[in-house]
Amino acid sequence: MRWKLTIAYDGAPFRGWQSQSGGNTVQDLLEAAVGRILGAAVTVHGSGRTDAGVHALGQVAHFDVPDGWRMDAAAWLRALQVHLPPQIRVMRAEAAEPRFHARFDAVGKTYRYRLWHGAVLPPHEWQRAWHVPHVLDEVRLREVLSLCAGRHDFAAFAAFRGDVRSDADTVRTIHRAGLERKGEKWVLTWSGDGFLYRMVRLLTGAAVRVAQGRAEVAWFRGLLDEPAGRKNHHQAPADGLYLVSVDYGTAGDVHTCPERVAGAADGIP
Amino acid sequence: MRWKLTIAYDGAPFRGWQSQSGGNTVQDLLEAAVGRILGAAVTVHGSGRTDAGVHALGQVAHFDVPDGWRMDAAAWLRALQVHLPPQIRVMRAEAAEPRFHARFDAVGKTYRYRLWHGAVLPPHEWQRAWHVPHVLDEVRLREVLSLCAGRHDFAAFAAFRGDVRSDADTVRTIHRAGLERKGEKWVLTWSGDGFLYRMVRLLTGAAVRVAQGRAEVAWFRGLLDEPAGRKNHHQAPADGLYLVSVDYGTAGDVHTCPERVAGAADGIP
Repeated sequence: MRWKLTIAYDGAPFRGWQSQSGGNTVQDLLEAAVGRILGAAVTVHGSGRTDAGVHALGQVAHFDVPDGWRMDAAAWLRALQVHLPPQIRVMRAEAAEPRFHARFDAVGKTYRYRLWHGAVLPPHEWQRAWHVPHVLDEVRLREVLSLCAGRHDFAAFAAFRGDVRSDADTVRTIHRAGLERKGEKWVLTWSGDGFLYRMVRLLTGAAVRVAQGRAEVAWFRGLLDEPAGRKNHHQAPADGLYLVSVDYGTAGDVHTCPERVAGAADGIP
Repeated sequence: MRWKLTIAYDGAPFRGWQSQSGGNTVQDLLEAAVGRILGAAVTVHGSGRTDAGVHALGQVAHFDVPDGWRMDAAAWLRALQVHLPPQIRVMRAEAAEPRFHARFDAVGKTYRYRLWHGAVLPPHEWQRAWHVPHVLDEVRLREVLSLCAGRHDFAAFAAFRGDVRSDADTVRTIHRAGLERKGEKWVLTWSGDGFLYRMVRLLTGAAVRVAQGRAEVAWFRGLLDEPAGRKNHHQAPADGLYLVSVDYGTAGDVHTCPERVAGAADGIP
C-alpha cells in the first residue's frame, strides 16, 4: 500500500532533501523514521530535491508498506513525529493510489522567497530570509517579475546538473511571479509547472540585482528571450527559499486557486 | 557618556539575559561586544532579566563609555552587530541622558506569549511557541484574561526569588491582557507597569489550564482576589514568551498607544 506525506521542514540544520553518504538529509531522516516503524528498510520518494538550507512548508513524498500493514493516517502521523527531529514534521499523511508518484505525477510547484529589506536582520529572521539592506526598487522588481510569467526557455536560469541535457528540457511555464510587501518583509511567490535546478534562486538573484540597480531590466529580458549561450550567475542564498506546495492537478490546484497563494507575507512561516 | 540600546534576541541558544559563570547569556555576549570595541571591561545594565529560552524583540539596556569617545549611533549599531552572534541584534542605539537607567526608569513592559493550537507544531514554530494541541476554549481564555486587567496583588503568580520580600511588592497593574487569533496561532499580549518573577509565564500557564477545561474560572479568580497562602504552579514554557517593549514614560508609551500592540499575531516574528 502506498502512502503520501506532506512534509514541512526548517532547512537550516539539514544537508538538503536528497539522501547522501554521511546522512543528515531530510530524506535520510524520513527513511530512518519509516524504517524504524516498519522494521525494514524503505525508500521515501520526494517530489524533488531541495538544497541544503532550503525550507519546505509542503514538500510531498510517497512510500510503500507491505499489504495488510494496519496503520491508519492518524497513526502514521503520530508515529512519524516521534521518530523525527522537531525541525521536520509530517503535516499530513494519506493513503494514495497504488500508481501515485510524488515526483512524476507533479504538474506544478509553488515556492516563496523571503527578503528582509531593513538595516538590521532581526534575530528571528536569521537563516529564514535573505538580508538585502540597501537599495531595493519595488517598481523595477515588479517589472522583471512580470517578464517571467508565461512560457519561456529558462536555460539561462538553470545550474548544470546531470539531468539537464537539452534545450527542450529548459522550457517551463511560470503561472505566477508575484511580490507582496509587509514592512521590511518582501515575499516573492513563484508558481509554475516545474522549475529547473536552482531556477528559483537564480531568477530571484537576478531579479534582486535589477532591483538593486546593479543590472538593467534589458539584461534580465535578454536572458529570458535569448538564452542561447548566456547564464545568470547571481544566485539568491538558500536561506530565504521555501517550497510551499506541490500540485498534482487535483482539486485545489495552486494556479487555479489564488487564495492558496494570497497572503504570502503573513503565511511564512 | 551613556548609551541606550534596544535589543532583539532569539532566546533558544542562550542561558537567559543575566550574566553568570559559564557565560553564554545575552548580557555576557553584549558586555563582551562592547568591551571589545572599547578595549575595556564594561557593564551593560538591562531593563530586567529574561529566563533561558525567552525571546526579546525590544529589550532595553544602557552602558557608559569614556567622555570624548567618538562614535555616533550609526557607528555603534554597525560595530556591535559585528561582535554579536546573529541571534542577538541591536535594533537601535541612541545617546541617553546621563541619569537614564534601563531598569529603574522603566514604568511598564509589554510581553507576548505565542500558543500554537493545532495537531502538529510546524517546524518553524519549534522553540518559538507553546504547542497546545487539544482543547483550548477561546471564551474561557478571554474570560480569565479580562479578570487580569487592572490593579491586583499577583502574589499567587510569582515564583520565589531573593528580591520579592513582602506583599506590598507583589501589587502590579496590568493595562492589557489581550488575545489575538490567526488560524492556529494564538497570541496573548500582557502589558503592565511591571511584572513579578515568572509572572507572565505563571499567568499564561494558569489561563491556558482554564481554557483547557482542567481548572475553573473561579480557581483563577480566587488566586487573583485572595492570594494569601496560595500559589499557582502551572507555568507556561519559556519558548513562547517574547519581551516586546519596555516603556519609559516618554512619547509612544505602550499603554497609551494601542497601535503599538495591535497586530500581535502578525508581528511575531
